[in-house]
Amino acid sequence: MKPRIAIDMDEVMADIEPKFQKIYEREFGEKITRDDYWGQKIYETRDETRYIRDFLHDKGFFRDLEVMPDSQEVIRELMEDHEIFITTAAMEFRSSFEDKYDWLQEHFPFLHWKNFVFCGDKSIIRADYMIDDHVRNLESFQGTGLLFTASHNIHEDRFTRVDNWQQVREYFKTQKAK
Amino acid sequence: MKPRIAIDMDEVMADIEPKFQKIYEREFGEKITRDDYWGQKIYETRDETRYIRDFLHDKGFFRDLEVMPDSQEVIRELMEDHEIFITTAAMEFRSSFEDKYDWLQEHFPFLHWKNFVFCGDKSIIRADYMIDDHVRNLESFQGTGLLFTASHNIHEDRFTRVDNWQQVREYFKTQKAK
Repeated sequence: MKPRIAIDMDEVMADIEPKFQKIYEREFGEKITRDDYWGQKIYETRDETRYIRDFLHDKGFFRDLEVMPDSQEVIRELMEDHEIFITTAAMEFRSSFEDKYDWLQEHFPFLHWKNFVFCGDKSIIRADYMIDDHVRNLESFQGTGLLFTASHNIHEDRFTRVDNWQQVREYFKTQKAK
Repeated sequence: MKPRIAIDMDEVMADIEPKFQKIYEREFGEKITRDDYWGQKIYETRDETRYIRDFLHDKGFFRDLEVMPDSQEVIRELMEDHEIFITTAAMEFRSSFEDKYDWLQEHFPFLHWKNFVFCGDKSIIRADYMIDDHVRNLESFQGTGLLFTASHNIHEDRFTRVDNWQQVREYFKTQKAK
């Protein structure tokens, strides 16, 4: 049986930052860059910015997110030697289900819907590897966790870190060589 | 840690048969009873009835299904000593996501959305027990599978069978006593 990799969507396959940067600029009339919120989520910099997280509940929010660089190419490569499941904590956002499904079908048409998982608590996932930007998901995972770098997890050092999809590719090349 | 039970929705928590019986009668102008399709799915009795499975894709189909007798009461009881996850193979039906979510919120308000899972291939589920009406899901499950009786699985004998929620209650009482 091929080793199975569970891959998160937001901030791993889908880049949520450009959209939030635009929302931030529209709401507060000033530009914000990664440096301004490095070490946090973009909406956590000040108390009065926290409400922009609520835009995650808007119908359409997840439909037009940018694809993370190289994710399509690397995931397609990984499928040769691995079972790939997309595991996203969609349940908090009722309005995200169809958007996420359509986004995956559009940008990752080579993945089968049988391998999509919308969940809440990711401790329900059975896989060999998990690529995720949230340590809470890796903490409850029984396989090997890879922490995908995002602004809010840069101070974390308990998991193997990957900064981008090229590093994911390299990691699994090394695993295969073992 | 509490043992975890993964529970399927359709034909386990949600009774899909009364709706299909109505559709059958409307489409073919004749009543159909359980006896007529015992051993099969309701739409598998004749080649020309197979298309009514496609109604599963209709928006709203899963929103007003009847609740399986005693499921609310027994699941609430099981929550005392178990972690309950609802694991439904929703991914085939894009239009079912919001309906299933709303149905669960309406009829099982004591369950948290963190414990809902919409998936395709259930081999991704990590739990101690799985209650499901499809043997394919129990076959790929690494814990203990309970086969919930449905018209299409009556000839199956590889798994512990439960005919209704009272039997589910009894099964877990016996497990606890061990």
